[in-house]
Amino acid sequence: MARVVVDVMLKPEILDPQGQAVANALPRLGVSDVSSVRIGRRIEIEFAGEPDPDTAREIADKLLANPVIEDFTIRVEEPAGDAARVNA
Amino acid sequence: MARVVVDVMLKPEILDPQGQAVANALPRLGVSDVSSVRIGRRIEIEFAGEPDPDTAREIADKLLANPVIEDFTIRVEEPAGDAARVNA
Amino acid sequence: MARVVVDVMLKPEILDPQGQAVANALPRLGVSDVSSVRIGRRIEIEFAGEPDPDTAREIADKLLANPVIEDFTIRVEEPAGDAARVNA
Amino acid sequence: MARVVVDVMLKPEILDPQGQAVANALPRLGVSDVSSVRIGRRIEIEFAGEPDPDTAREIADKLLANPVIEDFTIRVEEPAGDAARVNA
Repeated sequence: MARVVVDVMLKPEILDPQGQAVANALPRLGVSDVSSVRIGRRIEIEFAGEPDPDTAREIADKLLANPVIEDFTIRVEEPAGDAARVNA
Repeated sequence: MARVVVDVMLKPEILDPQGQAVANALPRLGVSDVSSVRIGRRIEIEFAGEPDPDTAREIADKLLANPVIEDFTIRVEEPAGDAARVNA
Repeated sequence: MARVVVDVMLKPEILDPQGQAVANALPRLGVSDVSSVRIGRRIEIEFAGEPDPDTAREIADKLLANPVIEDFTIRVEEPAGDAARVNA
Repeated sequence: MARVVVDVMLKPEILDPQGQAVANALPRLGVSDVSSVRIGRRIEIEFAGEPDPDTAREIADKLLANPVIEDFTIRVEEPAGDAARVNA
């Protein structure tokens, strides 16, 4: 089964307070070399047959992203990519 | 400036009602070949110097993901990846 | 037009890393008397006619909340409540 | 222990695709009298002592809401409110 991944992020000029909260909490972890944290959404769309980026784009346009404040990217993810998944 | 990306998804056995809502809305768009939609978070961590996956892992462990219900993956993203970004 | 509000929060025993990030960032704002921050979702459901908490409950059960990890509450919100809304 | 609740919603003129996805999924549940669904965030801030709405407002301004795209409301929640909480 193949998967299309849609990444939705606030446009760079839009403030992200949740990312800012994480960034502001880092000094307490002893982390000082991070300049920015941005939090968006990752949507995994599984297709019954061939993965279809055009359909994914239509879904993203209508149900996943707000084009006024967000950008999105679409890509087909190879199943092998799962090998990198870590149980947290 | 280099970036580490942390993808946080609910574990596969955990129900994702927000993804389910998107999946259930698809027939009205004329989309019938999607078998599953899962919605997680994508966090972009920019480092002032070298991107540091170990630091990103510590941040994810403590501030980004709940290990009981979520898995996460970490990867260094090449700046060239931005070429694929689309203005929605 | 009347509104039903559904508040969805992680169960108390489930760690909320995003709330933790906000809590950890507070000392840098000079805030020291906050003991906990929890971040959930608030869903406003507008009905064309009478607000219907039973329908809202069914929507919450199926499309808004995951009963394994989340609790939700449902209430009818009086329109007068809007008077308190502040432009941030 | 007292609690301040911050509700953060997208401004009314900003499209909410996640709420739209839920709304579009409702006909499949047999629900036809819902005119709108909007999904925001509810943040519960517990104070060690007296609940402090002014502090909550400062936290919301800096770490919870983006004033360009979101509105927020702040209120002190009476502990009795918990009686309404339902285990989903």
